[in-house]
Amino acid sequence: MALTRDDHRFMARALRLAERGLYTTMPNPRVGCVLVKNQQIIAEGWHVRAGEGHAEVNALRIAAEQARGATAYVTLEPCNHTGKTGPCSQALIDAGVARVVYAMEDPNPLVSGRGLERLAAAGIEVDGPLFEEQARALNPGFITRMERKRPLLRCKMAMSLDGRTAMASGESKWITSPKARADVQRLRAASCAIVTGIGSVLQDNSQLTLRARELGLPRAEDIARRQPLRVILDSRLQLPRDALIMQTADPNSPELVPGPILLVHNGTADGAQLDGWPAHVELLALPGRDGRIDLEALVRELAQRQCNEVLIEAGATLAGAFLRRGLLDEVVVYMAPKLLGSQARPLFELPLETMSASLALKITDMRALGQDWRITAVPDVEY
Amino acid sequence: MALTRDDHRFMARALRLAERGLYTTMPNPRVGCVLVKNQQIIAEGWHVRAGEGHAEVNALRIAAEQARGATAYVTLEPCNHTGKTGPCSQALIDAGVARVVYAMEDPNPLVSGRGLERLAAAGIEVDGPLFEEQARALNPGFITRMERKRPLLRCKMAMSLDGRTAMASGESKWITSPKARADVQRLRAASCAIVTGIGSVLQDNSQLTLRARELGLPRAEDIARRQPLRVILDSRLQLPRDALIMQTADPNSPELVPGPILLVHNGTADGAQLDGWPAHVELLALPGRDGRIDLEALVRELAQRQCNEVLIEAGATLAGAFLRRGLLDEVVVYMAPKLLGSQARPLFELPLETMSASLALKITDMRALGQDWRITAVPDVEY
Repeated sequence: MALTRDDHRFMARALRLAERGLYTTMPNPRVGCVLVKNQQIIAEGWHVRAGEGHAEVNALRIAAEQARGATAYVTLEPCNHTGKTGPCSQALIDAGVARVVYAMEDPNPLVSGRGLERLAAAGIEVDGPLFEEQARALNPGFITRMERKRPLLRCKMAMSLDGRTAMASGESKWITSPKARADVQRLRAASCAIVTGIGSVLQDNSQLTLRARELGLPRAEDIARRQPLRVILDSRLQLPRDALIMQTADPNSPELVPGPILLVHNGTADGAQLDGWPAHVELLALPGRDGRIDLEALVRELAQRQCNEVLIEAGATLAGAFLRRGLLDEVVVYMAPKLLGSQARPLFELPLETMSASLALKITDMRALGQDWRITAVPDVEY
Repeated sequence: MALTRDDHRFMARALRLAERGLYTTMPNPRVGCVLVKNQQIIAEGWHVRAGEGHAEVNALRIAAEQARGATAYVTLEPCNHTGKTGPCSQALIDAGVARVVYAMEDPNPLVSGRGLERLAAAGIEVDGPLFEEQARALNPGFITRMERKRPLLRCKMAMSLDGRTAMASGESKWITSPKARADVQRLRAASCAIVTGIGSVLQDNSQLTLRARELGLPRAEDIARRQPLRVILDSRLQLPRDALIMQTADPNSPELVPGPILLVHNGTADGAQLDGWPAHVELLALPGRDGRIDLEALVRELAQRQCNEVLIEAGATLAGAFLRRGLLDEVVVYMAPKLLGSQARPLFELPLETMSASLALKITDMRALGQDWRITAVPDVEY
């Protein structure tokens, strides 16, 4: 059946519902579902949190007997496997749904299309994809992990108009405005892990936590209950055990329990350095060349830990290392309308000699955040 | 009389007409005029070029006898002095205009309000200001010259996303796209003079001419007939006499006659260096400290030459010098979506130690030009 105007309208609604899970579904994808009968929405559902009901199941539960003969709009192909919940494809069949419109197929090449096949085999009319691009935009990290077996790596920088991230001394508080910093909180909230370098931790003594009152979001307290994994790249294990990031409570937000720490070193540390870390700190040796940490191995490790979106909050050196190795999928730059001058620190440590060596990006979004501007860019290459 | 909706409509039209003079009226301001009778426009006029009719006179000529009893909408207070043309205030009185609505008063404090007074004394109803902010935006350079006795200094830079204007070697062709470069052509066309440094001339061997076919404007040939004054800051008179900028014709545009050159040095040159320059090159000694050129004296010189808008197209050193001396009124940055790296040249040569010394700007405009973005900023200070 051809897709109608109503189909577009109901799928747009389902996409909106999926968005509600932006900060909570990980490692699962954000998914929305709308059940429609006689051009009327009879039930809505979205996936809230891993371990809880999938979008389809949540909507079917509300619709109950009404679901028979309905059309289901789902932003992602219904799953066909029995995980923490039963397969959604079977649930739709059991409920007697007559038609399923999907936005995009499952990005996992091993199962893609299976859910739709089961529905069709049961006599359900299946239509789609519809609003595929929008559906993909909801789950950039999950899709990257399914398709490329690695998380989406997003690097966030705060810079001045002249492209500087800190004074030569390292001083950088505060380049950007509170509005931009609240936006960074939301980036953190959408991320499974935050990666930083020991240099930044020593310089800024920051905690890299999610703070409910800075999120500027509904259900902020609920969102901040899930704290991202904090990954510190610390080749020689220099992290002071009394650093703020080591604390198990945020002095400014006593109700908040900071996330665990993955402390990554180069494997050369001795017994005393490796001993006696508290329970929420996990040590991991990922030796690379020249005493550095193997960044590719780190990315594999984060994939194995089911990280969808990973936020890199680091200085020019570490950010530049990710960039030079072609590991960055997205760069988010908060640009403040000020000049820090020609001695200040660069955006990326990136030694290039000629224009032909310059790195091409594509700016995908540009928006004002108070006095600052947020620039989103992706490397201008095809994977 | 209170300003009506029709008044707003007709003044908006007058502002549009004034805009047509954007690239040709200098050193005069851009001005538009609409004559209205019975809610109908009976004549329109705008100032095209110094020495030709003012906006009011051009409109009155079209209206002829019809002007009697009409309302005149003028974007600038009608002049009250006899220059190359007679006073516009008297022309409006003589034509029997019944009412004058003005957008802004004359910015010259010595004559401001005089034209309006003469109109009122002749029994004409005078209303305004109306759309004053928009009217001021039409003539930022002229207004600066009238109010602050100096031109508006606008610095144009082309940079990468990481704030770099050239590779360490000086290589910079091309950071930005043809669309951005066409926009620079329009900035040049709106300027009375272009200021550059000998370093840029030696590095890029550019001509700093206005090229009709690159303007992307109607009447481009006409606009390119007026070439801005090219000012080269060349302390020790190093300009090679065979530099491209010295040529009296543009090899790519044979019909084009490049503008004159003002070659500014520090006064230490000897006879041979000062002798034998062609007629279109004027030498000027403006000795400053330490063998440098006195930039404040240069600004005074350009004011004396009735420059409204001056475009600075220079490298980080000279642009930084203007900036550090607080001489820049506007910065226009073309930002290309690429990274030139941490060894590349800075936006401004600007040595600062602490965040508290950073220079605050205000971003007044941000727009896409193909793949690039144009950022317009002004220093965040009050004059």
